[in-house]
Amino acid sequence: MIYLDNAATTNNKPFCVKYAVIKAMGKNYSANPGRSSHNISIKSALEILKAREQLAKFFGLKNENNVIFTSGCTESLNLAILGSVKEKGHIITTVFEHNSVLRPLYYLKEKGLIDYTIVKPNFYGEITTKELKSALKTNTYMLIVNHISNVTGQENNLLEFGKFAKENNLLFLVDAAQSAGHKKICMQENNIDMLCVAGHKGLYSPQGVGVLLHNNIPLNPIKFGGTGIFAEEKNMPIISPETYEAGTTCTPNIFGLLAGVKFVKKHFSKIVKKQNIQTKYLLEKLNSLNNIILYTKPHSLNGVISLNIKNKTSQEVANILNAKHKICVRSGLHCAPLVHEFYGTLESGMVRVSLSYFTKKKELNKLINALKNI
Amino acid sequence: MIYLDNAATTNNKPFCVKYAVIKAMGKNYSANPGRSSHNISIKSALEILKAREQLAKFFGLKNENNVIFTSGCTESLNLAILGSVKEKGHIITTVFEHNSVLRPLYYLKEKGLIDYTIVKPNFYGEITTKELKSALKTNTYMLIVNHISNVTGQENNLLEFGKFAKENNLLFLVDAAQSAGHKKICMQENNIDMLCVAGHKGLYSPQGVGVLLHNNIPLNPIKFGGTGIFAEEKNMPIISPETYEAGTTCTPNIFGLLAGVKFVKKHFSKIVKKQNIQTKYLLEKLNSLNNIILYTKPHSLNGVISLNIKNKTSQEVANILNAKHKICVRSGLHCAPLVHEFYGTLESGMVRVSLSYFTKKKELNKLINALKNI
Repeated sequence: MIYLDNAATTNNKPFCVKYAVIKAMGKNYSANPGRSSHNISIKSALEILKAREQLAKFFGLKNENNVIFTSGCTESLNLAILGSVKEKGHIITTVFEHNSVLRPLYYLKEKGLIDYTIVKPNFYGEITTKELKSALKTNTYMLIVNHISNVTGQENNLLEFGKFAKENNLLFLVDAAQSAGHKKICMQENNIDMLCVAGHKGLYSPQGVGVLLHNNIPLNPIKFGGTGIFAEEKNMPIISPETYEAGTTCTPNIFGLLAGVKFVKKHFSKIVKKQNIQTKYLLEKLNSLNNIILYTKPHSLNGVISLNIKNKTSQEVANILNAKHKICVRSGLHCAPLVHEFYGTLESGMVRVSLSYFTKKKELNKLINALKNI
Repeated sequence: MIYLDNAATTNNKPFCVKYAVIKAMGKNYSANPGRSSHNISIKSALEILKAREQLAKFFGLKNENNVIFTSGCTESLNLAILGSVKEKGHIITTVFEHNSVLRPLYYLKEKGLIDYTIVKPNFYGEITTKELKSALKTNTYMLIVNHISNVTGQENNLLEFGKFAKENNLLFLVDAAQSAGHKKICMQENNIDMLCVAGHKGLYSPQGVGVLLHNNIPLNPIKFGGTGIFAEEKNMPIISPETYEAGTTCTPNIFGLLAGVKFVKKHFSKIVKKQNIQTKYLLEKLNSLNNIILYTKPHSLNGVISLNIKNKTSQEVANILNAKHKICVRSGLHCAPLVHEFYGTLESGMVRVSLSYFTKKKELNKLINALKNI
């Protein structure tokens, strides 16, 4: 099979990741980090600390205690949004967001706790600070944007948005599910208060781990249980990261994530370069085909390309690619329905092609030929 | 190191578990199950379905769609308790509970949503339906008990409690973190409405996965995001298991859990027998030592033994065992403070020794000798 569904999960993790996961399940590390005080538990905890340090460095965050491990980017976003809720406040977000942002907002609004404005792109299909400004209210307290759209690969300008957020005293929350590992992200530079990251996509970890990095934001926990500290207290004490990691840490996943981050750091310039070249190549080739509608802009060189074939649903195309050509892509709405409302593709969905560092040019050529034949 | 901290996490997972986890990260399975519709995603999804089927069978539940995967038993308990909340209702629970039960209850009470009664054991240190009955109120809607205490290894009578719950029209929620894999549990037989299970203890999975099995209970989700179905709907539709598994499934952990459950099923009678024999042996030997205070009852043969050495804190003893004798045990409160309130050990904590199927008799002898020497 040719795997071009890397925006969902990167296929076939690097050897170093697999090795790290196995290590975590072995006799020298398989214990509860941060719970017991024996050697195995401590060794395990030190490795988890290393993961926090590496992630903090990679994303330009000063304090590694503000690196919180979650079960995935969805939980990171839930914690960031539900944990920072300001009653009667207002949130600005965009049509590009995933349901892991939208549904927590719908939930909070239904409870009567907040209101929100979902910003639409301008004539050029982009969101600028102009659109954000027109959504601003006196009670706005947070701006939530994704860095790179998981549907079209479109990128938001974090530097501009960060300045806007700072000027208007807003919390700036960035969903980097699709961009972490693919793009440089510096929290400090971009005034990002909270950054939500998926492990299993561009950072090549196994599924089952995500990260919330925050800049000393006092969040309320959304899960309650054992923290390894202050066991006798009724309330969860607000201490990062312990408070937000109730229950046993997903040690093998975090070990895998640490290995993945190291892998990405080591190859980063090559990863970015290859992604740019391959996305550009694919976009140009696809653009020359008559029957293709492309939703990804020529300058969105982020490894995510969305398209449809005229008079076919995305599901039909994906099925043919899978069955006849042994090519894996994703069809449908990609859990981001408002993008499809905007593009008028709620019915058809979109065919999404997404690349990784391991994608080969000949695989892209096979895809292009297959699409020609459909 | 001699590892006797298996109640926290079983050390050195069986080969079949490691193999399954590696398989999930490889090219034939590493995709998003239940999201894409290509071969790799479908193969992965079928394996997840198998895990649901095996778990349903193992715990005597009819419908495998009511097997929900979570990030761990803490999340399972949070979902079960927060997701089933009845405003102005009353819950009965016990002093044996872990903070993953107590803290969600404290939280709900602080919000003014529920009230609870925490039942204490009788003169014999046991909880019977008599104690439960005296806690019953007209608005009681749920009974929450753990099956086996993670502190003392004490077992609650699920059959009796289940009858009591049914007679009084209560939801019966069982925390089986410590017992799953060690003891037979049949949901149907015991009238259990919701069963919360940890993967990484008696079921030998990697850390980072738990299960909530429920008997058609319509729960409200506690996490909001992509479900792979009904992407265009604002609310999370109440469909088990999809609604409760927002975000990418922790596939490698679930593959590992499936392998772990198969392993446990295959060796179950031997696991139970060995645990009985070893616990009994250890209890008898420890009972004959003068300086030891034993908290585990002679008939609690569940692989969890708690003790203290006179005039020493549990931390001191654990530290000596670790440093001098290379033996890993756990000290402190074990995230279950009310048990310690009951036993008067809030200050000292308890030394907990916990076994697994891989524990050797000679390791127990080394522990006994080490304790003699302290």
